[in-house]
Amino acid sequence: MVEEKKISMAVIRRLPRYFRYLSDLIKLDIKRISSKELSERMHITASQIRQDLNCFGGFGQQGYGYNVEYLYDEISKILGTNKRFSCIIVGAGNMGNALANYENFARRGFDIIAIFDVKKEKVGTVINNIKVMHMDILPEFIKTHHVDIAMLTVPNNKINEVATQVTELGIKGIWNFSPTDLRLDNGTIVENVHLSDSLMVLGYRLKESRENHNH
Amino acid sequence: MVEEKKISMAVIRRLPRYFRYLSDLIKLDIKRISSKELSERMHITASQIRQDLNCFGGFGQQGYGYNVEYLYDEISKILGTNKRFSCIIVGAGNMGNALANYENFARRGFDIIAIFDVKKEKVGTVINNIKVMHMDILPEFIKTHHVDIAMLTVPNNKINEVATQVTELGIKGIWNFSPTDLRLDNGTIVENVHLSDSLMVLGYRLKESRENHNH
Repeated sequence: MVEEKKISMAVIRRLPRYFRYLSDLIKLDIKRISSKELSERMHITASQIRQDLNCFGGFGQQGYGYNVEYLYDEISKILGTNKRFSCIIVGAGNMGNALANYENFARRGFDIIAIFDVKKEKVGTVINNIKVMHMDILPEFIKTHHVDIAMLTVPNNKINEVATQVTELGIKGIWNFSPTDLRLDNGTIVENVHLSDSLMVLGYRLKESRENHNH
Repeated sequence: MVEEKKISMAVIRRLPRYFRYLSDLIKLDIKRISSKELSERMHITASQIRQDLNCFGGFGQQGYGYNVEYLYDEISKILGTNKRFSCIIVGAGNMGNALANYENFARRGFDIIAIFDVKKEKVGTVINNIKVMHMDILPEFIKTHHVDIAMLTVPNNKINEVATQVTELGIKGIWNFSPTDLRLDNGTIVENVHLSDSLMVLGYRLKESRENHNH
């Protein structure tokens, strides 16, 4: 078991990627891998990999490489992939629908137990076997159900109001899909998803590649 | 104008975030900002900010801070936010719908000009004023329309086939929403979106916060 020490958020944010690659290696029945091979697969430098993985105790052995399953297990423990989280979706629009239908989440420990919206035409509809309820019911729902995470896919002009509301009801985690970088001073943990950021990087890389071709 | 030099991808990936924060500062009519103030707003260390922004020529002045508008303009130029990119969506499911309805993309220079799917019940429907066409029409469409980016929201078991198909038709950029880390050896530029990664980080942070409370 890995020694408990503070791992930087920069490293933590890279762990899900290691986790995915290691899980692929396990599927391929690969038992051990050098930082060089892992580097080639993941397109990260080998020195970055060694640095990241040394952070929590150095699983690698000189001349042997990493034991894939051990590394996978340790990263799983750090990330807490064996934990389960109860989630609700607020906003039953397209993005809410997409999230409710995403198979991967349940497999990773995130169970979507309810969907809420304020629109009459949404309330009562069923998305992936979950009935959409009116936001008015949320306080009552929270009394009878434990909820860890609210996934917010509401319009940008509603995000602050909805985020305040769900945290006042005691929800500790928010997964925010609005373009606003949500920050709450009440200790709520927020992860913001910024799809445009990724698209802008793609645009940059395309522009660079064009310019290089024209030289 | 910034001197042309190679900026690392790690820095590039952080630029959209600076871009968003600077655009907010401009809206608030803030003319200049110190790395310390920017650090507090963005929750990045001031030294990281100085390092990042020094990469492309150091816009900051001792005792004055950064000129917000100048910095915004320079980052815009680097990212190429004044460029326009023609995009198609392949896969008219929930995620495809969500992307087609995302207002921000057009504002950032990404125009969605067509949507494709293979399912009979999708073809002919209209999403945000764009008619969904059958994938069979794609080759003909590409002959008459310039397309920079294919946004792929197809099922995971179709992703390799579809990615190969669109790149063989000459599309140079792929925005991939399938869980597979797509890599193509034909020079295509790919950005993979991994929503689960962000959710796993949220799970980690919730777990940590619980454990700290229990100590």
